[in-house]
Amino acid sequence: MRQPVMRALAVGIAACGLMCAGNAAAFDVSEIGSFHIGGRTVSLEGLPVRELFYTSSAGTPLKVDPNGDYQVEQMYVHYVKLAQPKAKYPLLMVHGGGMTGVNWETTPDGRPGFQMYFLQHGHDVYTSDSVERGRASFARPEIWKSEPFFPVARATWELARIGPPGSYQTDPAKRVAYPDSKFPVAAFERLMKERVPRWTSNDAATQTAYDLYVQRVCPCVIMAHSTGGPFALNMALHAPDKVKALILLEPAGAPDPVKEEISKLRNVPHLYVWADHTSDEPSMKVVIPLAARWRDALAGIGASIDWIELPKLGITGNTHILMMDVNNLQIADLIQGWMAKQELMK
Amino acid sequence: MRQPVMRALAVGIAACGLMCAGNAAAFDVSEIGSFHIGGRTVSLEGLPVRELFYTSSAGTPLKVDPNGDYQVEQMYVHYVKLAQPKAKYPLLMVHGGGMTGVNWETTPDGRPGFQMYFLQHGHDVYTSDSVERGRASFARPEIWKSEPFFPVARATWELARIGPPGSYQTDPAKRVAYPDSKFPVAAFERLMKERVPRWTSNDAATQTAYDLYVQRVCPCVIMAHSTGGPFALNMALHAPDKVKALILLEPAGAPDPVKEEISKLRNVPHLYVWADHTSDEPSMKVVIPLAARWRDALAGIGASIDWIELPKLGITGNTHILMMDVNNLQIADLIQGWMAKQELMK
Repeated sequence: MRQPVMRALAVGIAACGLMCAGNAAAFDVSEIGSFHIGGRTVSLEGLPVRELFYTSSAGTPLKVDPNGDYQVEQMYVHYVKLAQPKAKYPLLMVHGGGMTGVNWETTPDGRPGFQMYFLQHGHDVYTSDSVERGRASFARPEIWKSEPFFPVARATWELARIGPPGSYQTDPAKRVAYPDSKFPVAAFERLMKERVPRWTSNDAATQTAYDLYVQRVCPCVIMAHSTGGPFALNMALHAPDKVKALILLEPAGAPDPVKEEISKLRNVPHLYVWADHTSDEPSMKVVIPLAARWRDALAGIGASIDWIELPKLGITGNTHILMMDVNNLQIADLIQGWMAKQELMK
Repeated sequence: MRQPVMRALAVGIAACGLMCAGNAAAFDVSEIGSFHIGGRTVSLEGLPVRELFYTSSAGTPLKVDPNGDYQVEQMYVHYVKLAQPKAKYPLLMVHGGGMTGVNWETTPDGRPGFQMYFLQHGHDVYTSDSVERGRASFARPEIWKSEPFFPVARATWELARIGPPGSYQTDPAKRVAYPDSKFPVAAFERLMKERVPRWTSNDAATQTAYDLYVQRVCPCVIMAHSTGGPFALNMALHAPDKVKALILLEPAGAPDPVKEEISKLRNVPHLYVWADHTSDEPSMKVVIPLAARWRDALAGIGASIDWIELPKLGITGNTHILMMDVNNLQIADLIQGWMAKQELMK
């Protein structure tokens, strides 16, 4: 791991600051669209026919026969391609658990998100909803035996480290965030509105779809958040020639480097970004050592690894969902600076 | 209802043809982003605590307490704003049943969809996922008592009128589409991948969220498909000063004009577009007369109503999901021509 880069990036932040963060330049788009990828057909039979009202306006019941063919375990991909990209490769943004690509499109306080920042800075940007999330859709209970797990406000508040354990209250006036929190606390309910259910049984299908996605759109750079981190590392392990760099925002662990052929990733630079108050949240005690074990193994074989703890750069109060914090564009500047240093721009 | 417009539009199509449809001009974007709107907090208690594995990589079980606060019945909105729009108002695209905003982003055969066409033609474009669909998320069974209804291939094939009743088979080689079908039949599974479950109990919540959406982003023009049609008509009835025109693509009925203050919509022009093979599909026998009753009532008070049956213009074989058909941009040209005639462009 190289420490000098941290200092250089810190200087870059000071020089660029909010002026860069506030860049509102228009950008010329050559194509915007989406697609679904992966999945399989499942045929069901023996289920009872039901009657449903198709719309409140048309008013007539429809006989619905649930037997037949379903598409399941596909994922959704959205892209914006620039007329004249300045980056060498498209940037794929991979969300975390109970989330969708919306994470990258906006912030709870209503500003455009990382998607627009990186478009403005010359990257073709791909966002996605993993298997089971959002526009990827989900399967009938006969197909997925595990039940959906719905995100609840208290756990979200605590896992995001907006405030310390026990500080969430139903009444917004009674919630006590960290005094230095960079989360737009008054907009917490807007974060909850973009959360989606997840299942516990679909990791393999999710990885399969992500791997197909890489085969379709890469070479690329992958930016992944939280539980997206391990998926992104596996995407790179499964296509080391196609993944040119990994940007890991508080990744929820990593594969076991002893069990993987890590030499395949010697030429894939990694940037890690960690936010504040990590010692207060129990799951971080698990995931940070797993990430550090991976970091050390990759650094040991000569890979370019940068490991940034924002508080050490004087950037305090950021949450687990740092791309939604009020200073998110300051962090985007830091990432963009790293990409330039890695010669990922033309 | 004015017939001459139909002839003028037909001439416009002949003159413009595939040259317009193939327009691949880049467009300058000032802002891209999204937001959730509407919804309410629901607090649950008395549910048992469970243990779940949060990711396959982190490896430690998490105790999940499902009691607490949830956000439900919000909707998702995505927008692309142009640096220099040529249209007077943003264009809101409202999807149909068991669908999401993806309907407007792409076609099953992998081309960009109506969203990009109308951006290229100078409109700020808003797409959305209604309450319960896609990125709008869905609620726990303790909150929504009705169960989700999952779209199955056979019913989709028939309701879309890709082939006549009974022509769907699991084996793609055995399916028999209409000989003149404009649907990209070989890509039928990709249509199924973008379908999402729906519930039967959320029409009121859906309308409430749509009405909030109008208050936030309009004045606007609304383009609605299928079951989105009645929602769009109600959006206009609830905000007649804010909805400047309605484009109704095979709308699934309409409110009862006798029960509504239709005079509020005297100055809101309506364009209806109907595709082919409507007589073969039972639900069309219900929805077309409901739409015609509304049309006649509005025409009777002097509103500008255009009612286009594509086969009468020589455009045959289109399906219920005409914005996904292979000639979708020919239909987009027709709509764009109507908008120009209605003086909705600057």
